[in-house]
Amino acid sequence: MHHTSTAAIDTHQVQRLQCQRQWRGFLHALGQEFAAALSAQDLATLMARIGVRFAAQHPLNPSENVTELQQAMNAVWDALDWGQVELAQAPAGMEIQHRFSPLVAALGETEGSWATGFLQGVYQQWFDAAGAAGLRVQTISALDALGNAHLRLVTA
Amino acid sequence: MHHTSTAAIDTHQVQRLQCQRQWRGFLHALGQEFAAALSAQDLATLMARIGVRFAAQHPLNPSENVTELQQAMNAVWDALDWGQVELAQAPAGMEIQHRFSPLVAALGETEGSWATGFLQGVYQQWFDAAGAAGLRVQTISALDALGNAHLRLVTA
Amino acid sequence: MHHTSTAAIDTHQVQRLQCQRQWRGFLHALGQEFAAALSAQDLATLMARIGVRFAAQHPLNPSENVTELQQAMNAVWDALDWGQVELAQAPAGMEIQHRFSPLVAALGETEGSWATGFLQGVYQQWFDAAGAAGLRVQTISALDALGNAHLRLVTA
Amino acid sequence: MHHTSTAAIDTHQVQRLQCQRQWRGFLHALGQEFAAALSAQDLATLMARIGVRFAAQHPLNPSENVTELQQAMNAVWDALDWGQVELAQAPAGMEIQHRFSPLVAALGETEGSWATGFLQGVYQQWFDAAGAAGLRVQTISALDALGNAHLRLVTA
Repeated sequence: MHHTSTAAIDTHQVQRLQCQRQWRGFLHALGQEFAAALSAQDLATLMARIGVRFAAQHPLNPSENVTELQQAMNAVWDALDWGQVELAQAPAGMEIQHRFSPLVAALGETEGSWATGFLQGVYQQWFDAAGAAGLRVQTISALDALGNAHLRLVTA
Repeated sequence: MHHTSTAAIDTHQVQRLQCQRQWRGFLHALGQEFAAALSAQDLATLMARIGVRFAAQHPLNPSENVTELQQAMNAVWDALDWGQVELAQAPAGMEIQHRFSPLVAALGETEGSWATGFLQGVYQQWFDAAGAAGLRVQTISALDALGNAHLRLVTA
Repeated sequence: MHHTSTAAIDTHQVQRLQCQRQWRGFLHALGQEFAAALSAQDLATLMARIGVRFAAQHPLNPSENVTELQQAMNAVWDALDWGQVELAQAPAGMEIQHRFSPLVAALGETEGSWATGFLQGVYQQWFDAAGAAGLRVQTISALDALGNAHLRLVTA
Repeated sequence: MHHTSTAAIDTHQVQRLQCQRQWRGFLHALGQEFAAALSAQDLATLMARIGVRFAAQHPLNPSENVTELQQAMNAVWDALDWGQVELAQAPAGMEIQHRFSPLVAALGETEGSWATGFLQGVYQQWFDAAGAAGLRVQTISALDALGNAHLRLVTA
């Protein structure tokens, strides 16, 4: 539909656009308070529980295959300006590449490690609801400055 | 500048506009997870700590009197679409009427009681920074469905 | 799903929420420039052409009946925070009640008469694409301060 | 306050973030209708008139020097997520580098040439109001895919 071109852009400028203004200050303060009060492990667990609730309240359209499942997930993310996901079958399991989530722009760059827990919870719940019983979503690399994270669906 | 007219509007329609779409689902799930995990008192305290951080990161322009102080506060709120505040000296203390905050639209209508803690923390920090040492912000009536709350600055 | 409650709200406060901040100033200046340069009739025609383009770029999901058609239209409006529509068969033709469009909040209260042309063009194109050949969308009452308008699909 | 890092990002992904969803479809259709109906020269003139109105409705805070003038301009742009400007005195005149305006993301990539007229009108009006009588803002390079443009204030 359109040519692809890339440009070198200051990541902080992109972060300002990624997290809309209304909740930027609130979420940044929340992120700092959380980081001061709880361990990274407890925070990741808390975020995963929030993610499970989010996914249960944003059920996916039915899908017949991985392509349709990816489309159903991106219909949710796109409507919220939460970036997008790419799913790929691989020997190690289903690769889940989420790009451009606003979580790091909102909670702060140093909070990416535990903030990834939210995505982990969301995808776990979505795969559970899609019938992937007994499989577990694990984090391969945590959210970076642009909100990109790599997760994987593996045998539990 | 313009005439004032009011209209009877479905509060849920207003709530949809109050909390922008990007963080609506995330904050709603967060509100439910918090409500399930912590007591209303603990949540109010947590929200107040987040509010103190927020206020410290959004310092007010200098003000000479209550009118200017109110303007300085509203400059912060307005830039974020967080409603507005009215300050009024009264025998019982300084009345703080905050109207149209997006907190209830975001966290859920049943979370208004503890969500008010955020505003309590914000105003406490702003009054402390303005030199109101020894005074304490207390909640008179918690956030209602439209995000209105009534607080008061009293002798501690 | 939820109880309906209404509240009396300052329409200007609602307008501020209806039209998001980023384009408020641009669209307000554009509305004034248009009103200064063109007649209301020419503006309504221009807006209708813009509406036709918009509708062609936002095709509806297939629908079997009026209820599904209304759902398909609201799926577009809802994703953009453009209010919602109610369709109803009546002796005079199909009634089209659009509520809560951000057009007046953006372009200015005095521009509601010609701004309605945009909705007229959108619905014309959507009904044409749905197979309503030979039928014409006409404006019954133009956009009011809250972005409500009444249109009707009639025999041309 | 923070380190500067850059990343290579798909320009279309940035454009999606630059122009908020609510007006994306409307403005895109408006841009296409304009381009079909008017010459690029007429459109640039129209956009400049809209820009003059916008600037008159967004007056700058007083400034004593170029640095403060740039700050006053960026206070307006920043509040609207309209990118930012850099001013620099040079032998040829005052250089005006505007980065990251949402105009191209909204109106379409092929509309950058005439859309620049809006910025030309805004800066003309702001410099006029700042007392730069007899000076004229001209476009050096039109808006690119990321909303960057180069203008210059020269002797008329």
